[in-house]
Amino acid sequence: MPAATRTIVLHEVGPRDGLQMEQQVVPTEQKARWIRELIAAGVDVIQVGSFVHPGKVPQMADTDRLFAELGKPEGVTLSALVLNEKGLERGLACDVGMFCMGVSASETHSRENTGMSIAQATARIISIAHRAVDAKKQVQVSVQSAFGCGYEGAVPQDRVLSLVHQFFDAGLTHISLADTAGHAVPEQVERLYEAVFAAGPGVEAACHFHNTYGLALANCWAAMRAGVTWFESSVAGLGGCPFTRIAGGNTCTEDFVHLLQRSGLRGDVRLDRLIAIAGDMSRFFGRELPGTVYRTGTVAEAVAGRS
Amino acid sequence: MPAATRTIVLHEVGPRDGLQMEQQVVPTEQKARWIRELIAAGVDVIQVGSFVHPGKVPQMADTDRLFAELGKPEGVTLSALVLNEKGLERGLACDVGMFCMGVSASETHSRENTGMSIAQATARIISIAHRAVDAKKQVQVSVQSAFGCGYEGAVPQDRVLSLVHQFFDAGLTHISLADTAGHAVPEQVERLYEAVFAAGPGVEAACHFHNTYGLALANCWAAMRAGVTWFESSVAGLGGCPFTRIAGGNTCTEDFVHLLQRSGLRGDVRLDRLIAIAGDMSRFFGRELPGTVYRTGTVAEAVAGRS
Repeated sequence: MPAATRTIVLHEVGPRDGLQMEQQVVPTEQKARWIRELIAAGVDVIQVGSFVHPGKVPQMADTDRLFAELGKPEGVTLSALVLNEKGLERGLACDVGMFCMGVSASETHSRENTGMSIAQATARIISIAHRAVDAKKQVQVSVQSAFGCGYEGAVPQDRVLSLVHQFFDAGLTHISLADTAGHAVPEQVERLYEAVFAAGPGVEAACHFHNTYGLALANCWAAMRAGVTWFESSVAGLGGCPFTRIAGGNTCTEDFVHLLQRSGLRGDVRLDRLIAIAGDMSRFFGRELPGTVYRTGTVAEAVAGRS
Repeated sequence: MPAATRTIVLHEVGPRDGLQMEQQVVPTEQKARWIRELIAAGVDVIQVGSFVHPGKVPQMADTDRLFAELGKPEGVTLSALVLNEKGLERGLACDVGMFCMGVSASETHSRENTGMSIAQATARIISIAHRAVDAKKQVQVSVQSAFGCGYEGAVPQDRVLSLVHQFFDAGLTHISLADTAGHAVPEQVERLYEAVFAAGPGVEAACHFHNTYGLALANCWAAMRAGVTWFESSVAGLGGCPFTRIAGGNTCTEDFVHLLQRSGLRGDVRLDRLIAIAGDMSRFFGRELPGTVYRTGTVAEAVAGRS
């Protein structure tokens, strides 16, 4: 077991990245039930929603109410995605525990998503991040399309690292790389994170993969090998990016936890509860969801069932 | 890029492991068409079938005829699985290029599969392997259930390595580890193969994963990192072991080749042709098959389609 794999933080992004592309709006109380179940399952951080304009992503319109409904549960950090100053203000009013915000490493994706160039978006995000830091909040900054772009294809590693260095130089050391379209491969993941850690001491790295081409778990493993400690995933493998035309679901939380536990890690997490949430979500949406283990059951169950 | 990942041999096992559990018997001429397409796509070795009793696996009853139909195509090795002396004789009569044979590391699996203990099965397989070597044939010996057993659960690494050492001591150095039930995780894969390579000089290692829990590609990557050079996979991700009650499909060939090519490896393989075969198989069986990329298309196609 590489030393780097001993600490794993599970950042569940299903309530935000998983749900945001779903057409069927989920009632606030249902979201709150799922989030309480996720807390009971023992994930570390849960991204409750995003403070985006309700007209742009109707599924996220109740993020403020959801924070009010949830309060400040013990033993878990509730995070939110913010895109601009207005969102930050709403988040501060909600007493969000951790703010997540990012810029794209692809000019086309940046302009499609925000209407701004990468340089403009970066300056703005750093300014917003500093305001969150000043408010004594945890802040994670991310580079989207860090491993390839649905519009542009390959994204030069130097461009990603330039953004990482700008964040680092601005004192923002908790940095996530997001594989927005699912283009990453493990070799690239290892290489890029090694370069990220070389940016300077104290970097805390997160990863966010999409399983478009079946590689999310392989990429998570490569990230673990490279020393990444924060893993963003979505229960049932829900998700996909509405702003890129093809993106599969997020890394599936329960599949990743199954991998971790089979590797002797994070035995404290209640995998059975995660699987139950995925099954409940599948019933709610009335379709099979991308996750695997909620359908197959675990290795332990398979063996117990035939012994 | 780890040095070890520079040489990759693609051993397509779809015509054998992929098809053997399909209830719908595939006509010999259809199998031959798929195999010729696989040859045209540029895979290195193709497992045409197994020399098993026709009553046990009806789908494999035409293996002799299939070899006769295919002849000795250039630039590819045709392999076959043999289970016993009778199978070897049939295979020698067919002028099979490479013989594959194995024993299980699980007593229960061994007895269920062969009616013999591990020790009995090992002695018999080594004897058959020696006869194939004497006939100047390539021989690959495998350890089945090397990463866990659908009946017994965990399989001690020492038991797997004991079999590897028995093979090595018998002069059989091309050794495959098969994750028959799909229980492997990447950390275990790296650890086990490192121990296999320590068995002695000249070991050529192969891997055979099943995607039961979504980990086949992650395990392939771990195997590549550990120095494994032979990769067994099945086009469209077809497969599963009829002798264990739960096993997902094999590593999907075109998904693995997509991973390789995105990693700068095996650009010589015609991924488009592999994808076409998978689509054709899906139409033939009238259902969606486990592979991903034949449904999503490649990253290159996704980017080209929107630029």
